[in-house]
Amino acid sequence: VSLSDTRVRDVGEFQLIDLLTQALPEEVRGDAGLVVGIGDDAAVWKPSASEEVMITTDSLIEDIHFRMDWTDWESLGHKSLAVNLSDLAAMGGIPRLAVVTLGLRGDERIDDLTALYQGLGKLAQRVGVSIAGGDIVRSPRALMIHITALGETRGGRFLTRSGARPGNLIGVTGTLGAAAAGMSLFELNHDDPRRRAATAPLLIAAHLRPEPRVRIGATLLEHDATAAMDLSDGLLGDLPKILKASGVSAKLEVASIPVAAAVRALFPERWLDLAMRGGEDYELLFTAPQEAWESLESVAHASGGTITKIGEVTPSGENGSVIELVADDGFSSIVNPGAFDHFAT
Amino acid sequence: VSLSDTRVRDVGEFQLIDLLTQALPEEVRGDAGLVVGIGDDAAVWKPSASEEVMITTDSLIEDIHFRMDWTDWESLGHKSLAVNLSDLAAMGGIPRLAVVTLGLRGDERIDDLTALYQGLGKLAQRVGVSIAGGDIVRSPRALMIHITALGETRGGRFLTRSGARPGNLIGVTGTLGAAAAGMSLFELNHDDPRRRAATAPLLIAAHLRPEPRVRIGATLLEHDATAAMDLSDGLLGDLPKILKASGVSAKLEVASIPVAAAVRALFPERWLDLAMRGGEDYELLFTAPQEAWESLESVAHASGGTITKIGEVTPSGENGSVIELVADDGFSSIVNPGAFDHFAT
Repeated sequence: VSLSDTRVRDVGEFQLIDLLTQALPEEVRGDAGLVVGIGDDAAVWKPSASEEVMITTDSLIEDIHFRMDWTDWESLGHKSLAVNLSDLAAMGGIPRLAVVTLGLRGDERIDDLTALYQGLGKLAQRVGVSIAGGDIVRSPRALMIHITALGETRGGRFLTRSGARPGNLIGVTGTLGAAAAGMSLFELNHDDPRRRAATAPLLIAAHLRPEPRVRIGATLLEHDATAAMDLSDGLLGDLPKILKASGVSAKLEVASIPVAAAVRALFPERWLDLAMRGGEDYELLFTAPQEAWESLESVAHASGGTITKIGEVTPSGENGSVIELVADDGFSSIVNPGAFDHFAT
Repeated sequence: VSLSDTRVRDVGEFQLIDLLTQALPEEVRGDAGLVVGIGDDAAVWKPSASEEVMITTDSLIEDIHFRMDWTDWESLGHKSLAVNLSDLAAMGGIPRLAVVTLGLRGDERIDDLTALYQGLGKLAQRVGVSIAGGDIVRSPRALMIHITALGETRGGRFLTRSGARPGNLIGVTGTLGAAAAGMSLFELNHDDPRRRAATAPLLIAAHLRPEPRVRIGATLLEHDATAAMDLSDGLLGDLPKILKASGVSAKLEVASIPVAAAVRALFPERWLDLAMRGGEDYELLFTAPQEAWESLESVAHASGGTITKIGEVTPSGENGSVIELVADDGFSSIVNPGAFDHFAT
């Protein structure tokens, strides 16, 4: 029997759970990593001896965090798990398991939800995460995917936002602005030639399928980074959180901020804004002592990643934590780090 | 400055997190039970050595699981945590921490959300749960509260749904039907005298503020219960889940089902239906060997709880797991255990 036109309300909750579970690769279904998996009141998991447990939670809500006319279902599944694993990566943690709650209207196609679980399952498989269960609830007015992810410390150690010290270098992984540029492509007129640029698919992929930086997060931890977080609200939205937590300020060199060539090429007037305020990069922002930089850089490169020095941690002044932006021409400006607010109008 | 008319979008996300955190009792804010609490990418928690970790997740969505004209905010906070702790209680677990995601429209009053957190915080304090953080997201079309709760096993042991064996007795804690009766009171005409009955507040409290049966869950585990789960979908919706997981059938004596006198008095024609199908009791349904019953009962009574024998586990026949209902007059009927479906129309 083809399921292609079957909807959630045709199969009911319990068959739906079975179908979604079957859409996951076998090794992430909980049987491997868990004592009790999907189907009881709670999942039961045995953490590694002497490690601590990390917990993070992040939701994607339709028309706030994604639009169904912009994303495919498999990418949506990938992203909903990726944004959670990104938080664990930022602390240098080892992702272990996740519980998934779907809020559904009831008219969703089973095939679409299966694709969502396949996207989620492939990423889970790749990073070694078990899907330990979850919940399916009615959400008549918007699709939502809510995930809580658990990880473990590495040898009892982890990175926080509060360890940045004056004199530390400030670095980022990868490049910034590609995800925001990818979203901007969707907002252009349908006949805008940029939507058909050869580089457009790369930018769109950065928006729809961010990659959690698990490996480089481990590298940062092992090579003496002092603070880290993942970039979800843009560099100018997130850096203040490290500065405030650490009680320090920052000097950023604008010319050093790594921006993909495609972002500069397709958005010649906005690329810097996309890179600094665009958000959803899910790269890691971190601080590290100057003397740790060289080994950090070589290990990152050896594992196929990149890190870029974008500035320096400075002492906090009488105005608290501020960001000094040094432009190409050497002129500086102070940025009031009023962080991005999800409820601002 | 009075906050009484201040709304979410007036204070912004970060001040809101501060205000909500302050609404929690100090000992549940994460400083006590956690290595890293609210405010970093992830919370960090050190589980007890040699215990396993239990994870469960449950959401309340406006107009599906609650109505703002029926509940007060403090009760809503209580219930959103209680339904999660109930899952841990059903496995005999020790609740340890919870992460809370609020999905908000933006026009909610700060005072109301503070009351929600106070309700949640009081229950957390009473059962020893730390609020380890969470997330606040925009949810423009419905308020939602999404919680993931973590607990620990007791001495490495826990109860599941799959341990029921033929010959075991079937029991429930407390009484059934009060929560459904409380909700039914809200559905009556405003001038219905039952809404002003002396017992009405008790029933409404059962609906709005269910009590997670953490202590009696521990008693069940320690005194050799073989299976347990919490009753959220009604006895006839949930018992089949134990039967299916354990590969057994059940014989229930209708006359034995404990129903509060107020439910019988206010709903003389529906009380049995409320008790058997009403749902949201958050009492524990369990099975135990006959020889364990007496000590179970005396320990439960000694700690202020009650358990009632309602039937017996029988071997599964050729039709799989079925429920035989034995009525007062001795006549039996077979119930097709088609469980409650959240998407059925």
